[in-house]
Amino acid sequence: MQDLGVDALLLSLGADLPWLTGYEAMPLERLTMLVLPVDDGATLVVPALEAPRVQERADEFRLRPWGETEDPVGIVAALVGPRRRLAVSDRTWASFLLGLQEALPTASWSRASVVTAPLRARKDAEEVAALRAAAEGADRVATQLLAGDIRLIGRSESEVSAEIGQRLRAEGHERVNFAIVGSGPNGASPHHEPGSRVIAADEAVVCDFGGTMAGYCSDTTRTVFTGDPPAEFRELYAVLQAAQAAAVQAAVVGTPCEEVDGVARGLITEAGFGDRFIHRTGHGIGLEEHEDPYLVAGNREALAPGHAFSVEPGIYVPGRFGARIEDIVVAADAGPEPLNRTSHDLHVVEA
Amino acid sequence: MQDLGVDALLLSLGADLPWLTGYEAMPLERLTMLVLPVDDGATLVVPALEAPRVQERADEFRLRPWGETEDPVGIVAALVGPRRRLAVSDRTWASFLLGLQEALPTASWSRASVVTAPLRARKDAEEVAALRAAAEGADRVATQLLAGDIRLIGRSESEVSAEIGQRLRAEGHERVNFAIVGSGPNGASPHHEPGSRVIAADEAVVCDFGGTMAGYCSDTTRTVFTGDPPAEFRELYAVLQAAQAAAVQAAVVGTPCEEVDGVARGLITEAGFGDRFIHRTGHGIGLEEHEDPYLVAGNREALAPGHAFSVEPGIYVPGRFGARIEDIVVAADAGPEPLNRTSHDLHVVEA
Repeated sequence: MQDLGVDALLLSLGADLPWLTGYEAMPLERLTMLVLPVDDGATLVVPALEAPRVQERADEFRLRPWGETEDPVGIVAALVGPRRRLAVSDRTWASFLLGLQEALPTASWSRASVVTAPLRARKDAEEVAALRAAAEGADRVATQLLAGDIRLIGRSESEVSAEIGQRLRAEGHERVNFAIVGSGPNGASPHHEPGSRVIAADEAVVCDFGGTMAGYCSDTTRTVFTGDPPAEFRELYAVLQAAQAAAVQAAVVGTPCEEVDGVARGLITEAGFGDRFIHRTGHGIGLEEHEDPYLVAGNREALAPGHAFSVEPGIYVPGRFGARIEDIVVAADAGPEPLNRTSHDLHVVEA
Repeated sequence: MQDLGVDALLLSLGADLPWLTGYEAMPLERLTMLVLPVDDGATLVVPALEAPRVQERADEFRLRPWGETEDPVGIVAALVGPRRRLAVSDRTWASFLLGLQEALPTASWSRASVVTAPLRARKDAEEVAALRAAAEGADRVATQLLAGDIRLIGRSESEVSAEIGQRLRAEGHERVNFAIVGSGPNGASPHHEPGSRVIAADEAVVCDFGGTMAGYCSDTTRTVFTGDPPAEFRELYAVLQAAQAAAVQAAVVGTPCEEVDGVARGLITEAGFGDRFIHRTGHGIGLEEHEDPYLVAGNREALAPGHAFSVEPGIYVPGRFGARIEDIVVAADAGPEPLNRTSHDLHVVEA
């Protein structure tokens, strides 16, 4: 904080607060905010009715519960005191930031992620172990999918999504964060909301799912085909598979993030699908599903040991189908370690 | 917006955007934002990979999908143009507001709720019907609870919470928002996180649960006793029951919100439990679980026809037990209409 010129961190929603304190703020209109000055102890401002939920740690932070008729923004402002270079957690509600800006009109503001993101991005051994355990849980579900244990044909996407969610829980996740099931033309929408569409034979089905296990996130994607895939799809899938593998190989310590994206994009573009790959190659993962580092053009940050991120190129043909392959990978001095280990081959299910 | 001096609304996370467009922004680091100028058509700035999810309505808003290497904040700033009095949705991430403030350094900022909250707070007949349907779904679960159909003794709070969630889904909710189960001393924590504590005989169990049905929220609380309640608890509960009923009766059109809180608090204080009622009496409800109007000291806003809100006093004795009774109520010219209809009497289950 001293190096970065930050006098106090103000942490509300998002993972910075639980990363530091073990306590996650509830996303409510009642403000929860940790005031962490560079030169003094930290104080957690918390609604009185939520205070019983917090494990106080006198050596780490004091509690300042506030009653229903108190003004929490004023309490935070008083704790900030004369400090003026303030960094607020990225997901803090705008309504609270506007209130704080009014209460502290001479302060300058930046994102707390300037301080926390580089620290959170480099996972230590314990965190990598937690990500590995979550990936293994997701992989057990992916294995069931590839083996045809999850019935697809004749069921709606939302039914299949719910089953994937149940299986994630059964395999040890305490929370399901998402379970995208995009069948046929819906597979061309990368963030498709599973709906009432009934999956038919001879379709590509993109399944992208993840949850949280012991606080850390999983995220993997496999694309299966409900029948004998036409040559056109096989060719497209082979391009995708090669691009994904090459990007994983490229994710070595010291490589700029954008170069990993460039490797996948280069191969897909060479094959003529450049305009069908409409998103970045990957995102960091940890306590949050999406966090630093992002594998995207323009991000020149070099990969460092402990960086954990997805490698997930996709090819999307609007109105027809989509395909995506995704693994979580950790950068290490010994080379990139993929945490997801299930087969990348095009699996035909229920043919 | 003209009356309030707002040149443009900028809507991202929260219910304002789906309320106006039917589309809900994903809570991600990629910005989704509706730019709605007072003097021009609206534009939804949306990540290209999420654009396929949006039902475009050319008469209501244009789409401006942005690619992975574009700057969405710059796109929003360009759409804002020369307008300078901007209102941003309350739940927009601080990181985006800071970016917008940097891009538009001469703008003045306010909360979008200044414009939207009074409009959203007064529900029309269709919205009241949706809230009633959601309340009836929650009531069917409450009926099962009061009848002893949900086994409590010998099970952990989190098991019971999961069962309540399943029952909410079975009764028509598409989403479970929370299912608080606070047993024994845990009942004294109003927002208790259900955990591994096993429910025993002769305990008060506070069950507060709700979900979303057809977009609108339910929220009801009943407190049951696993055995013959001691006189002390019966007396406390009788005070609570009288206070809750009196507050519902007081919720007539024209009454200031804080007076409804005052009625419940007055009765509870008279009985000697004033310092055990540590939260406001209620919150508005609609597309969001908590929204305007809030029944809290200091809120002099008068109740208007169509206002929908919870009435949920509680009494909490730290280390021992808690009790809360909650109904959703709609203010109407004909008088307050409680949407939740299950019995308020102290139910003994598994005695």
